[in-house]
Amino acid sequence: MPQIAVDAMSGDSGPRTVLLALAGLVKDYPDVQFHLVGDEATLRRELQRSRLRDTEQVQIRHASQVVGMDEAPSQALRGKRDSSMHVAIGLLREGQVDAVVSAGNTGALMALGKVFLRTIPGIDRPAIAAFLPTRKGRVLALDLGANVDCHPEHLLQFAVMGSILFAQVTGTQRPRVGLLNIGSEEIKGNELVKAASALLRQSHLNFIGNVEGSQIYQDGCDVLVCDGFVGNVFLKTSEGLAAMVRQELRASYTQGLYGRMAYLINRPILQKLRRRLDSRQYNGATLLGLNGIIIKSHGNADRLAFARAVEVAIAEARHRLTLEIAKVVQDDLAQVIRNSA
Amino acid sequence: MPQIAVDAMSGDSGPRTVLLALAGLVKDYPDVQFHLVGDEATLRRELQRSRLRDTEQVQIRHASQVVGMDEAPSQALRGKRDSSMHVAIGLLREGQVDAVVSAGNTGALMALGKVFLRTIPGIDRPAIAAFLPTRKGRVLALDLGANVDCHPEHLLQFAVMGSILFAQVTGTQRPRVGLLNIGSEEIKGNELVKAASALLRQSHLNFIGNVEGSQIYQDGCDVLVCDGFVGNVFLKTSEGLAAMVRQELRASYTQGLYGRMAYLINRPILQKLRRRLDSRQYNGATLLGLNGIIIKSHGNADRLAFARAVEVAIAEARHRLTLEIAKVVQDDLAQVIRNSA
Repeated sequence: MPQIAVDAMSGDSGPRTVLLALAGLVKDYPDVQFHLVGDEATLRRELQRSRLRDTEQVQIRHASQVVGMDEAPSQALRGKRDSSMHVAIGLLREGQVDAVVSAGNTGALMALGKVFLRTIPGIDRPAIAAFLPTRKGRVLALDLGANVDCHPEHLLQFAVMGSILFAQVTGTQRPRVGLLNIGSEEIKGNELVKAASALLRQSHLNFIGNVEGSQIYQDGCDVLVCDGFVGNVFLKTSEGLAAMVRQELRASYTQGLYGRMAYLINRPILQKLRRRLDSRQYNGATLLGLNGIIIKSHGNADRLAFARAVEVAIAEARHRLTLEIAKVVQDDLAQVIRNSA
Repeated sequence: MPQIAVDAMSGDSGPRTVLLALAGLVKDYPDVQFHLVGDEATLRRELQRSRLRDTEQVQIRHASQVVGMDEAPSQALRGKRDSSMHVAIGLLREGQVDAVVSAGNTGALMALGKVFLRTIPGIDRPAIAAFLPTRKGRVLALDLGANVDCHPEHLLQFAVMGSILFAQVTGTQRPRVGLLNIGSEEIKGNELVKAASALLRQSHLNFIGNVEGSQIYQDGCDVLVCDGFVGNVFLKTSEGLAAMVRQELRASYTQGLYGRMAYLINRPILQKLRRRLDSRQYNGATLLGLNGIIIKSHGNADRLAFARAVEVAIAEARHRLTLEIAKVVQDDLAQVIRNSA
């Protein structure tokens, strides 16, 4: 049965939100064991209050400190050895759990992950990867912000890892790998993507070439590769535009009697659209490339969003993702280097 | 009276679309003179067919060639000296017109602009700038694709030019300049934006710091500065997501009797939303930094979109934008360099 460590203290929402999320999940995942990491007294009190009072599926692991959202990774590493984040990742390293979920500070989470778990041999830098909805399916985009200055080799490594994750989670053979670029022609792009494109063409991956921003949501590819700066701009621009559309819909449908009546008649359609535009539905990014599964939740995740992140952790734990990557990565990269030689 | 040269041959849609666009504009802008540039016989024939037959506001300027959409800039420069793009920009250089509008190949348009008009003293590279809608107003974003590998000084120059254009067109004093970045804290970002941020802080501009993708559509700033690669990803991601939302709305409201009835009741609200998400409404990007006003239209612009681009040209011609920039730029940049010294 999958063992999931949940950092119950980090993030903006606190343990109560985490417990509300788990309250729904224990029913849907009766075979999963959850390890709540944080201040024991606080968690006991919250647990007594919650519907999880009597379940065997939730255990408490004590941790006396919490890493602040703006705390420097170095401080989180050295200064707070008994933080909930620290203890949760420690459980992962010792093999007591199969995955960790945290809504804490990304920099600290990544730093702790690197120090405790190390990166998979052949991978220089872990990337942040997340599934996003498209017109017909979904796309796995990486890196979404861990590496703002990349070399071409890093983008190749992201592509290899992303292909494995996508294939594992969706069951797709040879997922289509696209390189986020500003035109479809090969000559397009900045120095980084031109060089990365050459490496990707020589890899065994199912590389379909450049993908423009406008094609991503039209099923342009399965795995979208970019550096962490561009990926973060892509992700946050999408969230911002989606939020604007939702705000404008809300405004239109709450203006006056006509709007409110129209809303009643359209509720099903509008709710479907709102769900599609709701970034909470896609919460849960993987710190991909570490010897262990760490899922990063939005810092301000509510119960619904946090539950999605935990579900990502459960899915990846079931697929033993890290082992898969470790197995495949080295042959892949070795081959690419042979080909490019 | 403003004189506008319209490249009637370039782009995917052809002269008929251009004339349909102008047919609406001559009424709204009775004081504007339009110079249709392209093959005389073709344009005469189309003009006879159109509602513009008898107007004095439209003249034809002959050009025997057309620059292809995929043609290399070098080819457009040397190989096609009598292309409609060439002739139109020639009219601009000779001062016979105040602005040029073309739906042609961006690379060729920029190359011809640089060679014929040169860049404004103090500006190393022209940028592509366009206004986009936000929750409460609009944002001028640049560079949207002309310069994929930038130095910090280029981003500073974009900020200076963008501030002038925004102030001119909107009448806003000291527009808020934001640097597109992946976090609001100063330490965030890649090497380029960190260095650019330092220059912007020392400039006289109303620099408000980093703006994240999620804040752009929430009125995060008036002028959004980024390199051409990131800007193009930002722009096309927005267009792609907006298109997906429109497609899903259309799908919901054409499915079954319920959907179609719901649509009838909601038409006003939905049409308003669709207009907001309609990139044609924001067509017309400025090649900013040249000694002359050149407006680039989407290659596949329809009559509505092309008309918007022409309106951008008219507005900038009225404001004598280029002269303004030339006046201000050098003092601005000189001051920045003094400050940073």
